[in-house]
Amino acid sequence: MIHSHQIRVRYAECDRMGFVHHSVYALYFEEARTEILRVKGITYKDFEDAGIIMPVRSMKLDFKKAGRYDDLITIEVEIIGVPEIRCLFAYKTINQHGELLNTGETELFFVRKEDLRPIKLPEAYKQFLVD
Amino acid sequence: MIHSHQIRVRYAECDRMGFVHHSVYALYFEEARTEILRVKGITYKDFEDAGIIMPVRSMKLDFKKAGRYDDLITIEVEIIGVPEIRCLFAYKTINQHGELLNTGETELFFVRKEDLRPIKLPEAYKQFLVD
Amino acid sequence: MIHSHQIRVRYAECDRMGFVHHSVYALYFEEARTEILRVKGITYKDFEDAGIIMPVRSMKLDFKKAGRYDDLITIEVEIIGVPEIRCLFAYKTINQHGELLNTGETELFFVRKEDLRPIKLPEAYKQFLVD
Amino acid sequence: MIHSHQIRVRYAECDRMGFVHHSVYALYFEEARTEILRVKGITYKDFEDAGIIMPVRSMKLDFKKAGRYDDLITIEVEIIGVPEIRCLFAYKTINQHGELLNTGETELFFVRKEDLRPIKLPEAYKQFLVD
Repeated sequence: MIHSHQIRVRYAECDRMGFVHHSVYALYFEEARTEILRVKGITYKDFEDAGIIMPVRSMKLDFKKAGRYDDLITIEVEIIGVPEIRCLFAYKTINQHGELLNTGETELFFVRKEDLRPIKLPEAYKQFLVD
Repeated sequence: MIHSHQIRVRYAECDRMGFVHHSVYALYFEEARTEILRVKGITYKDFEDAGIIMPVRSMKLDFKKAGRYDDLITIEVEIIGVPEIRCLFAYKTINQHGELLNTGETELFFVRKEDLRPIKLPEAYKQFLVD
Repeated sequence: MIHSHQIRVRYAECDRMGFVHHSVYALYFEEARTEILRVKGITYKDFEDAGIIMPVRSMKLDFKKAGRYDDLITIEVEIIGVPEIRCLFAYKTINQHGELLNTGETELFFVRKEDLRPIKLPEAYKQFLVD
Repeated sequence: MIHSHQIRVRYAECDRMGFVHHSVYALYFEEARTEILRVKGITYKDFEDAGIIMPVRSMKLDFKKAGRYDDLITIEVEIIGVPEIRCLFAYKTINQHGELLNTGETELFFVRKEDLRPIKLPEAYKQFLVD
């Protein structure tokens, strides 16, 4: 399942080249992750409330074209594979003209909040993260 | 006591006008607050470790001139009055040419982390916050 | 005319107290400004494309209650008075439980991009900024 | 040549897990890039003033350990290879206890500001970017 999430580019997110600063896509991706979870019937907040946090283990980004102020961009996000000890998200960013701005990947893992130990995702949660 | 703290303006902190985005001064002021406390012999982290958090109650900013990328700016920060249930910080931002960029004020109050109740600053901490 | 604009709080916008960082409201207010202009029939981008930029001259914020991660907050924004050489925006931030989080004001002025001189807002634009 | 650049973690840069948000390292790396150029005798601002901008083409990050508020971290940055049409920077982030927090890479390319066309780095600038 691919979830499409729309974001309007904020003024402060653009740098003096007039481009969306490359760091900002990490925020957009995180927002898109939050929304694909919500669509799947769970929230990231539910995880944290249950004592599971999900730090980012790795991130990759390939930029094709710059985003601009006031662009109405779409983040297409999907979960790749079956989450066990980690969860892999893939992203495509597309602007209002249908142009691909960039692609990205983030790998998150599951950590018990209480002692910061990596854990296997409990079955009760896994069902929400598979298609 | 006025503490002068230097900050180099980051690329991402400037917007497409080429100016330091106005929101960024809240971060600069927070950094300057952290440093004046350190000079006075305590850290903001010490407060949090002791169960006292200091949310911002109000903030005011008057902009005279724009900051620019790679500027080496100085934040002059001081604590106004004697902190009891709140602590008032005043700021001046000056660039490398001696030009005043803006002035600001933030009012913080003391809150017990455990139940989020406002408290009076314990005497043991007050000595660090007066001149 | 009051325009109500909804924003979902991002994870990265919350600090280690678990609260929306106070600097973030400057971004929310800017987004709300952009949207009230759009509703009034013009975009901030139109201004910039016509060579008029609008730096922030002053900002005030009074915090009543903290915003939280994943809150669905509403910014109520309105333009106060008739813009001539400056434009005053007032804001209220309300969470999904109807609680007032904060109030704010920002004063912007009109500047000719080409030489960075303050100007009076041309009549052609003024009609969009009054009720 | 490896350049070591120190940064104090800001309060607002930490999220509600208490960790430096992963997006923030893109800002730290950018600051470290700026400083290695300065040490090599040129500034990124010099490039822009000469009409050359350097958008990020790709970014990779591998996180080992979380950064924390008030950490005094060191970014070790170096330029890999000889810049022709692109410039590759590699980074290591180390905290005050000597622990490796993460490693990263960013690939930048050279673009003529005036028409946004990719260019080969002029020889006059290349000398500053090699060891």
